[in-house]
Amino acid sequence: MSNQFYEHKINIIKDGTIASPNGFYSSAVACGIKKNDSLDLGLLYSDSPCSISALFTQNKLNGESLKWTRDILQKNNNFKAIIVNSGNANTAVGNIGLEHARIIADSVSKKLTINPSEVCIASTGIIGIELPIEKIKNGIKKLQLQKNNGSDFSNAILTTDTRNKEIAVEIQINDEVFIIGGAAKGAGMIHPNLATMLAFITTDLNIEKKWADKILSEITNDTFNMIDIDMDTSPCDMVMLISQSSANKNIINEGHYASSAFKEGLYIICEFLAKEIARDGEGATKLIEAKIESASDINIAKNSARSVISSILIKTMVKGKDPNCGRIITALGNTLPQLNEQKISIKIGEIIVYEKGIPITNNSELAISAMNEDTVTITISLHEGNASAIAWGCDLTEEYVKINSEMTT
Amino acid sequence: MSNQFYEHKINIIKDGTIASPNGFYSSAVACGIKKNDSLDLGLLYSDSPCSISALFTQNKLNGESLKWTRDILQKNNNFKAIIVNSGNANTAVGNIGLEHARIIADSVSKKLTINPSEVCIASTGIIGIELPIEKIKNGIKKLQLQKNNGSDFSNAILTTDTRNKEIAVEIQINDEVFIIGGAAKGAGMIHPNLATMLAFITTDLNIEKKWADKILSEITNDTFNMIDIDMDTSPCDMVMLISQSSANKNIINEGHYASSAFKEGLYIICEFLAKEIARDGEGATKLIEAKIESASDINIAKNSARSVISSILIKTMVKGKDPNCGRIITALGNTLPQLNEQKISIKIGEIIVYEKGIPITNNSELAISAMNEDTVTITISLHEGNASAIAWGCDLTEEYVKINSEMTT
Repeated sequence: MSNQFYEHKINIIKDGTIASPNGFYSSAVACGIKKNDSLDLGLLYSDSPCSISALFTQNKLNGESLKWTRDILQKNNNFKAIIVNSGNANTAVGNIGLEHARIIADSVSKKLTINPSEVCIASTGIIGIELPIEKIKNGIKKLQLQKNNGSDFSNAILTTDTRNKEIAVEIQINDEVFIIGGAAKGAGMIHPNLATMLAFITTDLNIEKKWADKILSEITNDTFNMIDIDMDTSPCDMVMLISQSSANKNIINEGHYASSAFKEGLYIICEFLAKEIARDGEGATKLIEAKIESASDINIAKNSARSVISSILIKTMVKGKDPNCGRIITALGNTLPQLNEQKISIKIGEIIVYEKGIPITNNSELAISAMNEDTVTITISLHEGNASAIAWGCDLTEEYVKINSEMTT
Repeated sequence: MSNQFYEHKINIIKDGTIASPNGFYSSAVACGIKKNDSLDLGLLYSDSPCSISALFTQNKLNGESLKWTRDILQKNNNFKAIIVNSGNANTAVGNIGLEHARIIADSVSKKLTINPSEVCIASTGIIGIELPIEKIKNGIKKLQLQKNNGSDFSNAILTTDTRNKEIAVEIQINDEVFIIGGAAKGAGMIHPNLATMLAFITTDLNIEKKWADKILSEITNDTFNMIDIDMDTSPCDMVMLISQSSANKNIINEGHYASSAFKEGLYIICEFLAKEIARDGEGATKLIEAKIESASDINIAKNSARSVISSILIKTMVKGKDPNCGRIITALGNTLPQLNEQKISIKIGEIIVYEKGIPITNNSELAISAMNEDTVTITISLHEGNASAIAWGCDLTEEYVKINSEMTT
């Protein structure tokens, strides 16, 4: 089989959602955790059992809902439901937090007539306040699964995000069609460290667990782990790849003829969601894309790209449309093992602002124009080797400070 | 001698400055680098040769003035003048930068009839723009050394700082009196990494170079290296201890009867200047003091303290007077090798907000009151061992963003 030639086509589905893959259903309600009657409780359901690959936050503080999910993922790999609340992280609240997770899983299992161990839970929002568990229990009763309201689920998982982050792609291989869908939330406490936000990815394919683990980790390292909003890693972050593992489906593994098509589709989903998270950072007005070219190795390329998008001084300079190459080279100086100014060139958009150790101040007006775009691309060529990397961030604005100094008061 | 008992008293000198120690003179002018006729060129002069211990930035990008100074410090240890310009960092400008440093040293040496290699240079301000060297040469001509205007020197080295940072102490041991003075600047690009700002410390004592190097490094690690404003390390930062090494003075070394008094005085100066830098961070309204108690070792204590004051979410919560223990424990979770929530307690001011894994929400109103103070102290007890550490930072405000997005435009 694997020697045969398989052509594939990938299309982005118009209005595609997490529930676009066959067999997935969703629901969302406003159960009262958030103010203003906003959706704050979302349920994702699969009509056949799913295998889940997941990556969790590297913060040593872990949310209690996350602990529940990590624990049951270790014990079995047979899931039918994922319930997510926003507005409260169920974190740093003492032992009551895990008890609340248990109550949520029980309520969902009764509602859907499944086992509590088939229910994954995620919580995101304020840390250090107990969940309003009665509101959540009542909310669960009101959830009504549907095929066509995946966007409500995407909406219910948001916190300070300003918009949904969702996408689905359709992959055709000869006569077969399969779908991958994704939904994510970001906005604050976003820093590059394994699994830095909530991201759920669904597929109606049956992906071999071992291979799914491998490619999810690889692709996360190049996408979700390459974004930064505010250098803080949340205790609740997770990325999940949810694939239907029912017995009547063929298992897709690394050697399968559909594997490269699936991996390509998964990359599109993850890159799209990662960039959407960065672009919608709290208070952000622009996406910053930092490209490192011709680095001596991949780690240097990645660290340098992340250093650029993490620098507060670069974030504020993008906000102010100030093409200040000094701040960029300072960020590199804080990261590179060695800095050879004479070899470095820097572009903002397509405009050269620094070349071979010398700022090109004559280009300032053109560079300011390039910073008017919604996406500001900073390209740095180190001229040391062949490695390259891209990271994504956002500008830092007065609005970010406003949001985060008024979060609970 | 060293077995004898020597009592000492340390007094802070009213209106003391960098030029308070005997034999030091200073001058400052507005040479036109900064707008609005602000002082931007300062000269410090000693009437007898000085030995200098210095610590330089760890950023791999180094300012050209800093390179000049580091270079001559390696070649000799016999200095009479330090010239500092603010408004322009003389950094990332290509080879012209070192040429400009040479011209500055030459101009100062001619003015004072000393050797260029007896002139240290520091520059701070915008990166990536050539120094207006003619303005500086004209400014040097106008400098008039005086005994009593050390505050003008302190003022001339400032960038976005809102006030002078200066202090002098008088140390009495039996019938002897000696003086240590200090001046520093901070405000932006301040992050804990060896030598993260400009700080000059003078004394009329003759301190043995080897011992001066040792204690300056030790004390810097506990003071200047424990502050953070915006997680960015500037390419021009330096800390200098300048002591008069003329042949007619006794050398103070570790075994000298005045050594502990001198070390105590130096600590007072460095701690004061470090806290002043943190308190006057760009846009800041408050000093944040993070105390870690009962950590298992000193590195864990220091890293945890720095993690707390570096967290943007803690900076914004202090700005908003929001006693959010969740953000504090999240910052710890990003730093501690292991997090044992059940053992941790957290106080804001004297108010307990988190104890043994549980937020004390009943104390919120009291904690909000504690956050009204000019200095907000966050004390974290890990209950793991005997190590402790303190770090200092400031809140993050809309004003910080405003300052840094309008820096050059």
